[in-house]
Amino acid sequence: MQEWTYMNGEILPIEKAFIHINDLGLVRGYGVFDYFRAISGKPVFLKEHLQRFKNSTHLLGLKTGLSASEIETQILKLIELNAAPMLGLKMICTGGYSPDGYTPTEPNLIITARPFVFADTQNGLKLMLVEHERELPEVKTLNYIVPITTIVRQKAMAADDVLYHKNGYVTESSRSNIFIVKDGVVITPDKGVLKGITRQNVIETAQKNFPVEVRPMSLLEVISADEVFTTGSTKRVVPITQIDNFKFAKGKITEKILSLLLEKEKE
Amino acid sequence: MQEWTYMNGEILPIEKAFIHINDLGLVRGYGVFDYFRAISGKPVFLKEHLQRFKNSTHLLGLKTGLSASEIETQILKLIELNAAPMLGLKMICTGGYSPDGYTPTEPNLIITARPFVFADTQNGLKLMLVEHERELPEVKTLNYIVPITTIVRQKAMAADDVLYHKNGYVTESSRSNIFIVKDGVVITPDKGVLKGITRQNVIETAQKNFPVEVRPMSLLEVISADEVFTTGSTKRVVPITQIDNFKFAKGKITEKILSLLLEKEKE
Repeated sequence: MQEWTYMNGEILPIEKAFIHINDLGLVRGYGVFDYFRAISGKPVFLKEHLQRFKNSTHLLGLKTGLSASEIETQILKLIELNAAPMLGLKMICTGGYSPDGYTPTEPNLIITARPFVFADTQNGLKLMLVEHERELPEVKTLNYIVPITTIVRQKAMAADDVLYHKNGYVTESSRSNIFIVKDGVVITPDKGVLKGITRQNVIETAQKNFPVEVRPMSLLEVISADEVFTTGSTKRVVPITQIDNFKFAKGKITEKILSLLLEKEKE
Repeated sequence: MQEWTYMNGEILPIEKAFIHINDLGLVRGYGVFDYFRAISGKPVFLKEHLQRFKNSTHLLGLKTGLSASEIETQILKLIELNAAPMLGLKMICTGGYSPDGYTPTEPNLIITARPFVFADTQNGLKLMLVEHERELPEVKTLNYIVPITTIVRQKAMAADDVLYHKNGYVTESSRSNIFIVKDGVVITPDKGVLKGITRQNVIETAQKNFPVEVRPMSLLEVISADEVFTTGSTKRVVPITQIDNFKFAKGKITEKILSLLLEKEKE
């Protein structure tokens, strides 16, 4: 299937989507992105993703030059061109072709749309604890150096992803948020995390069914939790069955929350 | 003047140097670089820069596929093609065109060589204190998001660059190292800093003339210093005349160290 990509006002085949090496996203990692799914041609939680993308660009002083509805128009075009049962769409905005290689200028805006399938998470996921605090945790920046350098250690531990903690508190995974369930209460960290769109939808829908606490969450609480689950656009809601050597059962509340999210996705 | 660039085995005009948007340097900020000058066709401290570049790629699990001497051959070709009184040369190695957009693969290697002139630093430089700890400070990664987001604040304070501090200790500037002089002793931080090539040469040459201490350096020590200076490949040795509201005179020891470095550059 031909994959089509949007780049600075043009729609072109992905194999022709090149960026000049002066781009500030490449030479200084200066850029942001957002990612969401489309199912059977319908983008999932698009309004929220567009809003967060706008916030991220704003926090880095970047102006895409397009309104949210203009970006949406391009997204819908790509979804139509790249017909697939499920697509993963990624919007990237970089600091542009900076004359001095440092100061942001007119941004480069890219949108890709590629076939997407959920990973097999039947048996839940295993996380590896990493002591780390992300730079600018609330901005969805292009910087993934630390988690990528841990891939080798992850493989050695047969872990699927990392779980960041610092000063006794847990924050998030490399590309998803973390929740625990203890004595029927659903808990997720409030600070030092990327405000995931799935996280927000889970909080909202869970609140109608369970007590939900959004507050600092200690590592001790996590390892003594009844259930642990992770949320993200590429995962929806997936049970965490192991963190380092601590094991967790797949739980009923996690299962219920997944079904609530699936309902909300259809709205 | 036509600028020539090296890219994955080929030398081409810079305006034709494009990279595909799947590059891991772009989509995940996963890459390293190094930068040095060439004066009148002669690269300055090339051996040290090649060594550090190799260390950086190694720490990120990247293999450039070229030996140091093969890279040197390409560098010398670029210096000859891009004739200019002074050149700034940059080597970039990224995680490559990763099929899953996350796991590093065969790297992309780029070398640019562009005309260089020293900035006017006659009156010294002014730094702005920023509380921050760099991720992987000893690796010269592509990630400059935090300092670039501070450009607006820097301009408001008429500062030339930032000075990072954390927990009462000073580390480095965004793209250069920091030294102080107190009671005739030259001091520079040992940890949490990029090990600058100019920094190392300054330490070695200064040691023959002054007592030098390489150790944790507190913010209190810095603001009560007799002289403060910064070092880097684009700056050599430049006096710092102001840090936030603290002012410093340009000093005799800084001046002497610059002259020692200039001697060492010619070796």
